Amino acid sequence: MRDVVEIGMGKTALRGYHLDDVAIVPTRRTRDVDDVSTAWQLDAYPFAIPCVAHPSDATMSPATAVTLGRLGGLGVLNVEGLWTRYEDPAKVLEELSLLDDEAPTTRKLQEVYAEPIRPELIADRVRAVREGGVTVAVRVSPQHTLTLAPVILDAGVDILVIQGTLVSAEHVSTVDEPLNLKEFIADLDLPVIVGGCTDYKTALHLMRTGAAGVIVGVGADEWSTTDTVLGIRVPMATAIADAAAARRDYLDETGGRYVHLIADGGLRTSGDVAKALGCGADAVMLGEPLSACVEAPAGGAWWHPAASHPSLPRGAFGPAQQPLGSMERLLFGPSDDAEGTLNLFGGLRRAMAKCGYRDVKEFQKVSLVLDR
Amino acid sequence: MRDVVEIGMGKTALRGYHLDDVAIVPTRRTRDVDDVSTAWQLDAYPFAIPCVAHPSDATMSPATAVTLGRLGGLGVLNVEGLWTRYEDPAKVLEELSLLDDEAPTTRKLQEVYAEPIRPELIADRVRAVREGGVTVAVRVSPQHTLTLAPVILDAGVDILVIQGTLVSAEHVSTVDEPLNLKEFIADLDLPVIVGGCTDYKTALHLMRTGAAGVIVGVGADEWSTTDTVLGIRVPMATAIADAAAARRDYLDETGGRYVHLIADGGLRTSGDVAKALGCGADAVMLGEPLSACVEAPAGGAWWHPAASHPSLPRGAFGPAQQPLGSMERLLFGPSDDAEGTLNLFGGLRRAMAKCGYRDVKEFQKVSLVLDR
Amino acid sequence: MRDVVEIGMGKTALRGYHLDDVAIVPTRRTRDVDDVSTAWQLDAYPFAIPCVAHPSDATMSPATAVTLGRLGGLGVLNVEGLWTRYEDPAKVLEELSLLDDEAPTTRKLQEVYAEPIRPELIADRVRAVREGGVTVAVRVSPQHTLTLAPVILDAGVDILVIQGTLVSAEHVSTVDEPLNLKEFIADLDLPVIVGGCTDYKTALHLMRTGAAGVIVGVGADEWSTTDTVLGIRVPMATAIADAAAARRDYLDETGGRYVHLIADGGLRTSGDVAKALGCGADAVMLGEPLSACVEAPAGGAWWHPAASHPSLPRGAFGPAQQPLGSMERLLFGPSDDAEGTLNLFGGLRRAMAKCGYRDVKEFQKVSLVLDR
Amino acid sequence: MRDVVEIGMGKTALRGYHLDDVAIVPTRRTRDVDDVSTAWQLDAYPFAIPCVAHPSDATMSPATAVTLGRLGGLGVLNVEGLWTRYEDPAKVLEELSLLDDEAPTTRKLQEVYAEPIRPELIADRVRAVREGGVTVAVRVSPQHTLTLAPVILDAGVDILVIQGTLVSAEHVSTVDEPLNLKEFIADLDLPVIVGGCTDYKTALHLMRTGAAGVIVGVGADEWSTTDTVLGIRVPMATAIADAAAARRDYLDETGGRYVHLIADGGLRTSGDVAKALGCGADAVMLGEPLSACVEAPAGGAWWHPAASHPSLPRGAFGPAQQPLGSMERLLFGPSDDAEGTLNLFGGLRRAMAKCGYRDVKEFQKVSLVLDR
Repeated sequence: MRDVVEIGMGKTALRGYHLDDVAIVPTRRTRDVDDVSTAWQLDAYPFAIPCVAHPSDATMSPATAVTLGRLGGLGVLNVEGLWTRYEDPAKVLEELSLLDDEAPTTRKLQEVYAEPIRPELIADRVRAVREGGVTVAVRVSPQHTLTLAPVILDAGVDILVIQGTLVSAEHVSTVDEPLNLKEFIADLDLPVIVGGCTDYKTALHLMRTGAAGVIVGVGADEWSTTDTVLGIRVPMATAIADAAAARRDYLDETGGRYVHLIADGGLRTSGDVAKALGCGADAVMLGEPLSACVEAPAGGAWWHPAASHPSLPRGAFGPAQQPLGSMERLLFGPSDDAEGTLNLFGGLRRAMAKCGYRDVKEFQKVSLVLDR
Repeated sequence: MRDVVEIGMGKTALRGYHLDDVAIVPTRRTRDVDDVSTAWQLDAYPFAIPCVAHPSDATMSPATAVTLGRLGGLGVLNVEGLWTRYEDPAKVLEELSLLDDEAPTTRKLQEVYAEPIRPELIADRVRAVREGGVTVAVRVSPQHTLTLAPVILDAGVDILVIQGTLVSAEHVSTVDEPLNLKEFIADLDLPVIVGGCTDYKTALHLMRTGAAGVIVGVGADEWSTTDTVLGIRVPMATAIADAAAARRDYLDETGGRYVHLIADGGLRTSGDVAKALGCGADAVMLGEPLSACVEAPAGGAWWHPAASHPSLPRGAFGPAQQPLGSMERLLFGPSDDAEGTLNLFGGLRRAMAKCGYRDVKEFQKVSLVLDR
Repeated sequence: MRDVVEIGMGKTALRGYHLDDVAIVPTRRTRDVDDVSTAWQLDAYPFAIPCVAHPSDATMSPATAVTLGRLGGLGVLNVEGLWTRYEDPAKVLEELSLLDDEAPTTRKLQEVYAEPIRPELIADRVRAVREGGVTVAVRVSPQHTLTLAPVILDAGVDILVIQGTLVSAEHVSTVDEPLNLKEFIADLDLPVIVGGCTDYKTALHLMRTGAAGVIVGVGADEWSTTDTVLGIRVPMATAIADAAAARRDYLDETGGRYVHLIADGGLRTSGDVAKALGCGADAVMLGEPLSACVEAPAGGAWWHPAASHPSLPRGAFGPAQQPLGSMERLLFGPSDDAEGTLNLFGGLRRAMAKCGYRDVKEFQKVSLVLDR
Repeated sequence: MRDVVEIGMGKTALRGYHLDDVAIVPTRRTRDVDDVSTAWQLDAYPFAIPCVAHPSDATMSPATAVTLGRLGGLGVLNVEGLWTRYEDPAKVLEELSLLDDEAPTTRKLQEVYAEPIRPELIADRVRAVREGGVTVAVRVSPQHTLTLAPVILDAGVDILVIQGTLVSAEHVSTVDEPLNLKEFIADLDLPVIVGGCTDYKTALHLMRTGAAGVIVGVGADEWSTTDTVLGIRVPMATAIADAAAARRDYLDETGGRYVHLIADGGLRTSGDVAKALGCGADAVMLGEPLSACVEAPAGGAWWHPAASHPSLPRGAFGPAQQPLGSMERLLFGPSDDAEGTLNLFGGLRRAMAKCGYRDVKEFQKVSLVLDR
């Protein structure tokens, strides 16, 4: 039934579908929007909305991580970002907020990220989030996990996010001692989210490392250039559904361990959020959409963590834009914008209500139509 | 034969097609355009053209409902629109007619629709239409049907249109007593049109409520944002054909009750009207196309009823444009525009003639080609 | 093998492909371009290139019909065009050549074509072409064939083109006595070309009327609006291939009558010409491409005959443009334009040479790839 | 399994896919980028990167051929280009570098290439490259191979590239004695690269001529107009995979002769390079991408060799642009551009690392997804 296409003699490709290719089809009862719940829980941590922040400095500062946490989502601070490279990144963020399309924006990003990471700042930043009274999560890259983990764990985080563009359960290196995710996670007391990945097999292997959550996708949005630089493009509807199959198979092979899928890519509007969950995700990771809120640290500018790579940047810089509203309004409305970029989770609730579902887990079964 | 696609392991989607994806193929005799009839009849009410107005205040005032009725179509006034919120909505309509793209148009719509509905105005508006000597139809939302129905019925309408973006035969609520469509319709003496819906099952269930007509689609046009806000997008060619299958099955199960399908969405030109009927619709519901006539109450501005939602608007505001001609000319020509937006039903007649069909019911069998 | 798609329950559509959807694949030997022939013959009339002019006043005057004939193609004058409505259409053509996009171009076309046809001018125009020493062909619409045929035949034409947007072998009318094509053609001594048509069955029926040539397509180009006005859109690759199947079947059922297919639509460049022949056409009908030559009667403006319809125009007006070169250069080069709009038949020859074919009939078997 | 589509009754087309239609899917381990090799070897000649220059005068002068060779690629000088028509082409190249979109660029190209080839200059140019200490390769067209080969061979080249838009193993001519590739190559002592071709059969026949390498594709890029002029368009993912099947079959039938495939077309970014290799190519032929380097002989202007054809040009002229960096930086970075046009082979390495492959030959097996 799965569409395997022979693109040339003896070379096949699986067909993949993007969130834009599919749409939701209401096929049963309707339900009052007030009877719908968007609650989500990862390990011991409950959330009012299935929303994790993409760890870009453009949206996540200690302050905004707290704001998002208080609103019911999960903020994630990048311990390899500006907040751990600069005592006070305010000036750098302001400079970035003033760049326009004419400026050599990538070079500027490379410049400000050339500053070395100062491990002692990690503890400060974690403390700032913790003092906000919310669940504390930080992101570290697989390459720096072994070096930075001790500092991070000492600082006391609740959830660790090990995230690179693409992470596998088995990294091969003849140069360094590579990170063995399985052993690393087994030694930890706290839940780990790991990713991104793009296919069934990698998702399954990441689940077997003991991760509590797996990130699906590479955070692709209209600024992302993973496609043109690496030739890697992730059809998110397919990637999420395939990872959901891995979740089911892993649940079966472990007799009950449920690993959460966090969709990261192709998400711009409330309709996209609804479709990602409808394809099987448990939560979404939001990057650029959060940069439109008043609280955004760089005045609405947006860049993906990979956009500052010193020799192979993979992401364009989106200059600062007029904010749409507070983060609260962005997530819960009221909206006075017709394009689905405000009231993201109010839109989700209404989509669920129109389809008659009560909660996110049920909504993963919603009918879809493929029309592009 | 129906194309079920596995978009990922274990998650399927039906393929759906838009009106733009298909085209009409003439495959038999041709016929004189004067020998073609576009007549339509709903219950006891005959119409010269299979045309129902979408109940937007942008096109439907008591006066234009009468104009459309006299020209052979069915006007529909929204009893939750400006005409029942304002004693005299002229000033509000003029303000809306002056808005341009720079204005905060959605906010303005939310503002003018924040005014409460005054039930006593309903009777006045209905009377005004009735005095025009045409079939009287009004639209009410499912949420307000129980409250407003007594007033509406007292006022004396011929046809009741119960329309929300999406309506199901079974609405679930733990908060209010939900509308039981089947019981409600059974108690009425007049024909009810109900919708929208987007799939076979919902269409069939709505038919079983006793409705005389079912609306297929969510009124999507280029201003609609149901897709980006809710993730719901309706491939109209497929939705109409599926609902036509429900019409056949319901005809069979009842031994002869024929429920009319009114297509609402994807309709801009006479070619679109022809394709909707060719897919199986009995009539079309026209929104934005009617806003191009001289008589349009807001000077040619266009907005969908859902565009004024207080917290989750789903539709952009189309600023006023130079009218193309009178409503009569819009429907019957002559046209001096090559784009198919004038002489909508003259275009339909000619399409039917080129394919050799005599009436709309026959034309539902026309051959189609899928070329996109 | 043919792709029949269920677009909704119980409603099917055949898949159709446009010339743009396919491309030519060279899969065998290559050949010297000088060894390739583009010759074509219809009945007793030989042509150096398989090129018939679309009978628009924008390209065909008595003078340009002669020019095209001398260059090896077939000019076709419209006997219902400006040349038979005006003693001297020069002034009208000049006015049209001066119209720009701002002008009410469709209204102007309707105006100048409102002038009645003067049958006595037909003989004059035919004589002018005949004096040029070329094969004489004129176009008449099916509606006016019975009235105008006597005048046309008296004037002495070689080939009669009976062309409407869509022509069937059986036209039904309760108003007028309809044209019976089969009887009409049987009574004639000269070859008749008839069309357009868009499918196998209509093509076969038109062949059975005794026509020497059948026009496939409705002359669609980027100015055509048959699609938006009537919902009729012709995927030309499919339409040509289907008509070629009708040609084979008719050849078989008659034991040897070969009816020529003339493709009319989707043709802009030499590559399009090659693809139309590669799909099975014997010749192409060129409209707008010829309006780019210096000799074009309206200074390079372009309009389709249906664009001047008094109540339902179906075609936009293309304002005059800087000519690309003489008609000779347009057809045979040399080209100094990279876009394939100059040297149309030199491009065809080279495409045939790259694929190793010697003549047009052989080239109909060329391999195609579908890549869109 | 291969998708054969009936585009009309009795006329089929194979489905073909472009590089843009597919993407790479990482499905296994990841690997350190430092453990990845991009080395390639053709016959006795080793290369650090699988990169052959497209022989356009816009990128290849004797000097840049040396530069590319020193950086690990293979420069190819066109012996029918400006360097063998002019004693000193500097002035001509400068003129071309100054042309903008307003100029009659194609006419200018035709003009400068109208100058006859001076065989004595061939030896000079070859010597200049040889003195650079790199592998020497020149391109000659099939039409001029017999005439120019003696001069070329006397001059002493390492690799001969016989390249036309489309080359077959059997060229038919009644006019000239055609080139018999098989006999010609058998008589030579040096490896020959020949092409382009677009399908399995032609690729196999070209392999049987004894060629060491076969060029797949017609060098199509956004300036190419082979499609509009000839109707020939090459879906590169399919063409490469089909040619790779020919390579396998020829390897089998010869018991071990491995012919290298050089992909020429659809290549703009590092992601495209990765996809071409992932489809089965051994190396890529880069045209326009190399014109963005500081060393480009015409200041960044770009034209395809076929763009200067005297009567049927097939390629537009791309005016000079600000260079992106040195050729070294173009190939190896560091990049400060997010679009994948700098650090072309660093991008390839990283793509291979993300997918866990060690070398190019292994990487030909990478998984693909088809999502357009």
